Amino acid sequence: MKTISIGLLGLGTVGSGVVKIIERNQDKLIHQIGCPVRIKKILVKNLNKERDVEVPEEKLTLNPADVLDDPEIDVIIEVMGGIDETRAYLLEALKNKKHVVTANKDLMALYGSELLTVATDNQCDLFYEASVAGGIPILRGLVDGLSSDRITKMMGIVNGTTNFILTKMSKNGSAYQDVLKEAQALGYAEADPTADVSGLDAARKMAILSTLGFSMNIDLADVKYEGITGISEEDLVYSKRLGYTMKLIGLSSRDGDKVEVSVQPALLPEHHPLASVNNEYNAVYVYGEAVGETMFYGPGAGSLPTATAVVSDLVSVMKNMRLGVNGRSAVSPQYSKTLKKPSEVKAKFFFRLHVKDEVGVLAKITTLFAEHGVSFDKILQLPMEEEHSSEIVLVTHRATLENFEKIQQKMNDYEIVKEIKSTYRVEGENGK
Amino acid sequence: MKTISIGLLGLGTVGSGVVKIIERNQDKLIHQIGCPVRIKKILVKNLNKERDVEVPEEKLTLNPADVLDDPEIDVIIEVMGGIDETRAYLLEALKNKKHVVTANKDLMALYGSELLTVATDNQCDLFYEASVAGGIPILRGLVDGLSSDRITKMMGIVNGTTNFILTKMSKNGSAYQDVLKEAQALGYAEADPTADVSGLDAARKMAILSTLGFSMNIDLADVKYEGITGISEEDLVYSKRLGYTMKLIGLSSRDGDKVEVSVQPALLPEHHPLASVNNEYNAVYVYGEAVGETMFYGPGAGSLPTATAVVSDLVSVMKNMRLGVNGRSAVSPQYSKTLKKPSEVKAKFFFRLHVKDEVGVLAKITTLFAEHGVSFDKILQLPMEEEHSSEIVLVTHRATLENFEKIQQKMNDYEIVKEIKSTYRVEGENGK
Repeated sequence: MKTISIGLLGLGTVGSGVVKIIERNQDKLIHQIGCPVRIKKILVKNLNKERDVEVPEEKLTLNPADVLDDPEIDVIIEVMGGIDETRAYLLEALKNKKHVVTANKDLMALYGSELLTVATDNQCDLFYEASVAGGIPILRGLVDGLSSDRITKMMGIVNGTTNFILTKMSKNGSAYQDVLKEAQALGYAEADPTADVSGLDAARKMAILSTLGFSMNIDLADVKYEGITGISEEDLVYSKRLGYTMKLIGLSSRDGDKVEVSVQPALLPEHHPLASVNNEYNAVYVYGEAVGETMFYGPGAGSLPTATAVVSDLVSVMKNMRLGVNGRSAVSPQYSKTLKKPSEVKAKFFFRLHVKDEVGVLAKITTLFAEHGVSFDKILQLPMEEEHSSEIVLVTHRATLENFEKIQQKMNDYEIVKEIKSTYRVEGENGK
Repeated sequence: MKTISIGLLGLGTVGSGVVKIIERNQDKLIHQIGCPVRIKKILVKNLNKERDVEVPEEKLTLNPADVLDDPEIDVIIEVMGGIDETRAYLLEALKNKKHVVTANKDLMALYGSELLTVATDNQCDLFYEASVAGGIPILRGLVDGLSSDRITKMMGIVNGTTNFILTKMSKNGSAYQDVLKEAQALGYAEADPTADVSGLDAARKMAILSTLGFSMNIDLADVKYEGITGISEEDLVYSKRLGYTMKLIGLSSRDGDKVEVSVQPALLPEHHPLASVNNEYNAVYVYGEAVGETMFYGPGAGSLPTATAVVSDLVSVMKNMRLGVNGRSAVSPQYSKTLKKPSEVKAKFFFRLHVKDEVGVLAKITTLFAEHGVSFDKILQLPMEEEHSSEIVLVTHRATLENFEKIQQKMNDYEIVKEIKSTYRVEGENGK
């Protein structure tokens, strides 16, 4: 009975989890694939670092070639992160006919298409379940579970840091900066949280999800994204009052051949399945033409959850090795993409405005919307402490993004509008 | 380019959906498998019945042999339901080297192990994703997505009829019989709803889920089940008041090698992910040692949702045909089962009692629990309209099922206890 040998690139949070799961669940792995699995060599940056797992010293190396060029190593597991250097390593591994499992969303969002082509050319598997939504098997859900259906919409809470922050802000009425500090102290946010709070991390994941879900090559550059740094406590209070929950939503939608992929804070009706996804949890809501609404929920990060996805990919690679069919399961995108123009994107919008408290103000504003064909679902007008001012909060019916942009531009020229405090999309009504 | 030919057994609700999806999504299917798929022959009971899809008359047959013995047919899709006759058909199909996709939970819960063995012996695939939770790809989630992990608990809302009924009873304060009639009128409940409301349907699904999730042969006979017919409006009112939601929960839990599989109405904390699964929707909550909490949510029944699962299985069969690896993906159960005894099952319990309103009643009752080592989480005592009576509602801390059964027996002998109105398990606290 041959032993399958693994080379590990990186031994940080996820890498330690991978080592633990392969050790602990060796029996289950053997039962499924018929032979033992061992980690042969691990590329690290520092040989003497204190780590969360015990690994014999002779397995560690500082030299990538010890992992990438060892002919005994069958599968490379990449959990080191990074983009350019990592890409070079994985290309070399694939050219050396090693299968690859990666958890690297940054890399897959930018170079996924290239890496998958090289993998197929070399009859190698390249799996990346862990790159989106940690422990949730969502990529398999799209590729296998819903292989017969055509997806029309995906909405993802795919960044745990921002979901933790928004949950705490909503529940405790705390300010963004305070909750960010708490998240950093708990390890849910990094010292430099920019990639998370700007929406970039979620945008990478939505590029990967959309490519698979819509069977089109969606690049990171196709994803418009906006983060959570501008969300105020007032926005959350009004959202709740109107029956909505604020979430950072990765949104992919398709009408026929045209798609929109974006990331932004959005308001969801309280009864929407995503609205109760709280704290650091992730979930991906998928709408298919035939299946209707489905949702996949679970931990979006963390050592063992993410490692579960990595090792499950490894099991798939090893099953394919046993059957001799590696490198033959990837399906290339079926459709060419056409991104929607702002005149083709339709949504409901939430506006919060500070206006002068004068006769006819509401009439002027509602007329402006009416002139652009936009009607209202909800309107609140409230006096403000500041003299001669009032606050207007409104939620529109569906209209095009282009019209909302025009309305905003014109509003900026209205003397009666002191400030457009915030605008958000409202998504997920009518069960979609 | 060869065409893959399908034989369909049954053309009812799910069968019509299968025909539609194969027609509508032919392009997507061809893209994935490299050749066209057509339905060659369909076994029906009545050639002239009005149906939801148009099918050329020559494709319909009353003779099973036209489907099962046609050498051109590669894959049999079974959506006719039933047990003994259907089992015989599928055994014949497998012996004729035809791959099988089935949506039949009744059959799989009873004869799944036999059919899977025959399939493997004949190098055939036998897939049954649609048999549990309709359109939700939960079996794949367990077998592939969480293949690296060890599952310790599954809780499923796996019967849409009872979930619809309980949701309406909870939200509108309606009585069971009234809501059942509404569900029947809407097509969510059958004319004879016994299999659903008794918990039998859910028990079948839990047997299938537990076999896969725990890698043990769990038979239907191993599943203790109880339905929803005894739930009163009062029970729902008290549940809500104490912060719980009542659901019909299929429960599989494992401690080491010992398992419990059961179906019963249970109370979940309102914030539990399953608590907001409403109406006819299904969801399966899965707890894995490494991954922690995950949940798979979606439509548990319906023509197109269930057909999505069937045709996704068909895609898997056809991909395996292309690779020449059919019949080699089934993994036989790894462990032998040991069912937990009542002394090994631990849970929290909800009790609702009618008692005489006398001095010392509460003391006597709490003493009885204390004598069995059971302490309390919550207690409510309320006067009743009936003279000299009061109602006691209590929720215990965790203790063994054996002790609860003893307490109930003794309580029956207490003159002060007029009636034990209801008892329910409380599940899903502390995130598990």
